[in-house]
Amino acid sequence: MSDAYEQSVELHRQHQGKIEIKSKVPLDTREDLSRAYTPGVARPCERIHADVNESFDLTMRGNSVCVLTDGTAVLGLGNIGPAAAMPVMEGKACLFKAFANIDAIPLCVQVPEGDAGTQQLIEIAKAIAPSYSGINLEDIAAPRCFAVEDALQDIGIPVMHDDQHGTAIVLLAAMINAMRVVGKEFTDARVVINGAGAAGTAIAKLLRCVDHESDVCVSVKEVIMCDSKGIIGPDRTDLNDEKKALLAFTNRPGISGTVHDAIKDADVFIGVSVGNLLCADDVRRMNNDAIILAMANPIPEITPDEARKGGAAVIGTGRSDFPNQVNNVLAFPGIFRGAIDARATRINGRMKLAAVHALANAVQNPSPDQILPDPLDHSIAPLVAKAVEQAAIESGLSRVATV
Amino acid sequence: MSDAYEQSVELHRQHQGKIEIKSKVPLDTREDLSRAYTPGVARPCERIHADVNESFDLTMRGNSVCVLTDGTAVLGLGNIGPAAAMPVMEGKACLFKAFANIDAIPLCVQVPEGDAGTQQLIEIAKAIAPSYSGINLEDIAAPRCFAVEDALQDIGIPVMHDDQHGTAIVLLAAMINAMRVVGKEFTDARVVINGAGAAGTAIAKLLRCVDHESDVCVSVKEVIMCDSKGIIGPDRTDLNDEKKALLAFTNRPGISGTVHDAIKDADVFIGVSVGNLLCADDVRRMNNDAIILAMANPIPEITPDEARKGGAAVIGTGRSDFPNQVNNVLAFPGIFRGAIDARATRINGRMKLAAVHALANAVQNPSPDQILPDPLDHSIAPLVAKAVEQAAIESGLSRVATV
Repeated sequence: MSDAYEQSVELHRQHQGKIEIKSKVPLDTREDLSRAYTPGVARPCERIHADVNESFDLTMRGNSVCVLTDGTAVLGLGNIGPAAAMPVMEGKACLFKAFANIDAIPLCVQVPEGDAGTQQLIEIAKAIAPSYSGINLEDIAAPRCFAVEDALQDIGIPVMHDDQHGTAIVLLAAMINAMRVVGKEFTDARVVINGAGAAGTAIAKLLRCVDHESDVCVSVKEVIMCDSKGIIGPDRTDLNDEKKALLAFTNRPGISGTVHDAIKDADVFIGVSVGNLLCADDVRRMNNDAIILAMANPIPEITPDEARKGGAAVIGTGRSDFPNQVNNVLAFPGIFRGAIDARATRINGRMKLAAVHALANAVQNPSPDQILPDPLDHSIAPLVAKAVEQAAIESGLSRVATV
Repeated sequence: MSDAYEQSVELHRQHQGKIEIKSKVPLDTREDLSRAYTPGVARPCERIHADVNESFDLTMRGNSVCVLTDGTAVLGLGNIGPAAAMPVMEGKACLFKAFANIDAIPLCVQVPEGDAGTQQLIEIAKAIAPSYSGINLEDIAAPRCFAVEDALQDIGIPVMHDDQHGTAIVLLAAMINAMRVVGKEFTDARVVINGAGAAGTAIAKLLRCVDHESDVCVSVKEVIMCDSKGIIGPDRTDLNDEKKALLAFTNRPGISGTVHDAIKDADVFIGVSVGNLLCADDVRRMNNDAIILAMANPIPEITPDEARKGGAAVIGTGRSDFPNQVNNVLAFPGIFRGAIDARATRINGRMKLAAVHALANAVQNPSPDQILPDPLDHSIAPLVAKAVEQAAIESGLSRVATV
């Protein structure tokens, strides 16, 4: 594993990054120049000025997504700043292209800390919207990521914070199939989520049907959330507004304690936190046929071996060298492809759930070692895209198509 | 000519714009993914966090320039907005790649009118700087373009408004060679500039050694500037601050009247304004061996035929179907290539003048029909780049090299 890190540095240095711009038109003759540039280019400009929808057909905008970050929550590295976030954004752009033929453009911005920076990030995203078909928010720390995403839902193009929803979508698909494997009902599930940042919050909302159309959403029985201080419950006096808001739809029994207390009698443990948190004894206190989805990277909250010792029936991690890798690449390329194909004005809950079910159903016969498709399977993004496009149209969010 | 316009629309529609993103690294195996993305990508991020200069070597930043516009002055079309400006920005990106192998990324932003919009544009440019090696400001209306460019000179990467300086640089090279052709001294030249917007102002400053190091700059004898109301002189009561400032280094005799008055006894007429302005009689009132550089597009201030009737010795236009095309593509790719290669923190006057002389000297034997290189000559940008890089190093503006 350590080799991958040094090899990555060499790869980046050798190519000076990972993506480049390529021209799609010839530029060899004066005639070429007169069509691609002056004077001919004036006419496409005029067409778009007359009807802004033409910008999607006549320019790169129609196939491009901005991958926007402020560098405040990059991988597990924290607030390393915009320039240092670029390798992740370029990687994302590579995946967008490889899996969904989307031209994704990294944009790493330096904004101040606090509310002023949040407002500036929102203003920047609004200002750049005319250049893109969508904006993928990336590696932005909580709670800023919530405020930024909320403020951008009406700008006319889809804006999605992938660390929240991409992760939540893949994870929910994994959990649905894991529940099928163990023969339990989704609606009976008691779920513990460790980690109450961007991903944990989005997962909880998806599991409890918050912000989603009720007719297409099915809720689990109970969700208990924990952060580094323990269970998020009514007794806690240290909760910020975002965590207080979680109490509206999690921890209805109002229990308190540590994650080790929370896990008692749970059916599912979801970790989006730090490595080496649980041991086999923790799993033994869970209900029979426990499901463990331990996403901390590179070291999961509990290793598959240890979880199996405790009696876990299905185990997923964020790692590619264990079975059941929960990897965002299963979701974001197809979600944005579908949203772009529908020319959607936003990504709503119905579209996210369509992605969940497309992903879950892509596995024909779920088994303990296969609850998700292979992240490198290129047939998945088109399935997700089709489902998301359809959901956008059914939701009345498509600029070009109706039911 | 009209065909080029409709063909341009078809070209844009067929390809959905003109540029796309291309991955430079393989993404076929899990090993590929672990180097290009997680977990390996964490290490290049850490390297850049430890030393931000590594961002130029390890990411696309090292070879990329943002082509930034607010869409307020697009071609001759005026304020058509950011979405409609995209075809021009993409065209620019195609040229950056074809002539200088630079990955240029269009960014079309929507900001409010007035000072608030100007401030927002400045803030956006500062915020996005960590993503790029330089920023090419494009098609931003005067006087906003001056304020924005000025405010961005200390952000640590080169920022240049091409409509000002790219045009001025090519034009000055053209004029130098035209003066050689007619055997006049550059320092004796009386020059009339019609058009006091972004380009006209930058040309006047370059001709009169304003903002440039005096040891590398040679000034013409006199510059008279005109706008749509006539000669810009001390009698005018309608001048904004930017035009008043021009009086510090133009029109020292303090004359007034129309452009037809201004042109009397001039050696050089430079038009960056509107078509069909002058006739043969105007040229007859100029000094012998008059030089006409009439850049209005697609119809020049005076046609070459008409100018010749009036006795003009050398005639240049912005059009590709006449000799002596004054085309920015001769300048901006090489200027940014040189600035990037030097890893310059800004583009100063010395670097611009180095580009001027590299361009002028690229024509071995200037003649009335050849005062500039062919815009499609791919050997020019590297010559310009080398000269600009050297000037940056000599100016102490290189992050990586010293004299």
